[in-house]
Amino acid sequence: LSGESALIGSLRALAHHPAARGLADDAAVLDVGAETLVLTHDMLVEGIHFPLSADPADVAWKLVAVNLSDLAAKGAEPLGVLLGFMLGEADQRFVEGLEDVLGHYGVPLLGGDTVAGGPPRAFGLTAIGRATHRPVPSRAGALPGDLLWVTGELGAAMLGFEALGGATQADSTAYRRPLARLPEGEALAPLVTAMMDVSDGLLLDAWRLAEASAVSLTIDCGAVPLAAPEDRRSEALRWGDDYELLFTLPAQIEPPVPATRIGSVEPGGPAQLFLDGEPIANRDGLGYEHES
Amino acid sequence: LSGESALIGSLRALAHHPAARGLADDAAVLDVGAETLVLTHDMLVEGIHFPLSADPADVAWKLVAVNLSDLAAKGAEPLGVLLGFMLGEADQRFVEGLEDVLGHYGVPLLGGDTVAGGPPRAFGLTAIGRATHRPVPSRAGALPGDLLWVTGELGAAMLGFEALGGATQADSTAYRRPLARLPEGEALAPLVTAMMDVSDGLLLDAWRLAEASAVSLTIDCGAVPLAAPEDRRSEALRWGDDYELLFTLPAQIEPPVPATRIGSVEPGGPAQLFLDGEPIANRDGLGYEHES
Repeated sequence: LSGESALIGSLRALAHHPAARGLADDAAVLDVGAETLVLTHDMLVEGIHFPLSADPADVAWKLVAVNLSDLAAKGAEPLGVLLGFMLGEADQRFVEGLEDVLGHYGVPLLGGDTVAGGPPRAFGLTAIGRATHRPVPSRAGALPGDLLWVTGELGAAMLGFEALGGATQADSTAYRRPLARLPEGEALAPLVTAMMDVSDGLLLDAWRLAEASAVSLTIDCGAVPLAAPEDRRSEALRWGDDYELLFTLPAQIEPPVPATRIGSVEPGGPAQLFLDGEPIANRDGLGYEHES
Repeated sequence: LSGESALIGSLRALAHHPAARGLADDAAVLDVGAETLVLTHDMLVEGIHFPLSADPADVAWKLVAVNLSDLAAKGAEPLGVLLGFMLGEADQRFVEGLEDVLGHYGVPLLGGDTVAGGPPRAFGLTAIGRATHRPVPSRAGALPGDLLWVTGELGAAMLGFEALGGATQADSTAYRRPLARLPEGEALAPLVTAMMDVSDGLLLDAWRLAEASAVSLTIDCGAVPLAAPEDRRSEALRWGDDYELLFTLPAQIEPPVPATRIGSVEPGGPAQLFLDGEPIANRDGLGYEHES
């Protein structure tokens, strides 16, 4: 991971255009004439982001959904996607999943590239969106006195993953086919002071939001709505892949979409998070760690 | 390859938005408000598009240049790139090459993703451009009576590749660090009836232009300017990676950039090409065959 961190530092040094937001946000935000584009690119690699045994239709769904979730965090309306596709086994299943997810969101396939290669296979997707509100929300911007909110429930992807492994009878859909909170992001964009999607675990992503905004977040862990049993609360708050939206609002503003207040924003200090009053100044153990 | 063709057929069926141009052009062309975006995504895979022994700095250069060449073929001005980067060996060399090529073209890195994975490593790049002229040139549009032109000389990449292998003393730069004809593309866009970049071999790409435009192209093979010795003319016309621009102009219009007239456009018929008078109705053997 240290080599990865050094490399990402080098890439950040190249990304000095303001549209890149220092590679520290969910997406690039690029003004073009009178329009503001929101651009994101994520890759999924076999054996790392999905198992060899995964249904390629689910891989296609997830590839699109995780990118659209980045657009949702910016309140952007998706305009289309470009696909980097590596040929392999059961490619028609991939296309079926792609058709499902693009149809679900009404987003067109605009182009891309098809290559041989692998194993392991690697897929890339670029999502292009148009900002529906400016300024476009970022992770930086939370202010002391704001309240902290999250959409939906946490832990559904964790249970879905376990169901996929056959460990439980639960439905694996939440893990296999996550949903991007596009309408919620668009409704929230004009109101929030900061927003991001929860991809790597609620607590880790909250830590990042606090760091980007140079504030501390006080979180009432018991207030976080769970899709999992109560005895798994701590895990559910650290599990990724739920793709809910985490955001801050001025105290007097109610969110226009279903969401739960889980904490508040305090002035920055040595601890980025206070979890039920306990200061957390180190992000180790807060979620799924990878650079993105 | 038949599986690949079937798969690409399935993807084309999904790409019904006009901006996708049926996945049959060099790039997608998307109207956003008053702007027209030009979008392209290409991947390079270790062992397929570059050897294990390649300098990662050259891989980075080529990854950016091939995508910018697609923008050049549309007369687009590049606005930025998103990078899908797979961690591996000598990553700092990759970043150095990336800095070189982005600096050369004055194009910012806007975002992307960094993942573990491989070998083989796979890299993806999305280039975002803005059309400088509308309508944006396509491969379709050549009309009988037009003349056929090409920029630069063919065969430099072929010689460069051989130099890289140590077979000759020639310079390998043309193969390792191809140039995208961005200023030429921008100057030509308002004038051409059809345009594309030469990535897979002049004759194969001419065949594709003829097919897209539903015309026949008459090519005087001896008129094509060569960077290679005369006895390698036939190979040079079939080798890819030169990234020159191939375009058609009405007969009375002179190109505003250095270019050579190599043929003319005739009504469509059973043969897409006439090479020194000989009809060619099958693209086998005309160049480097892969779907893109």
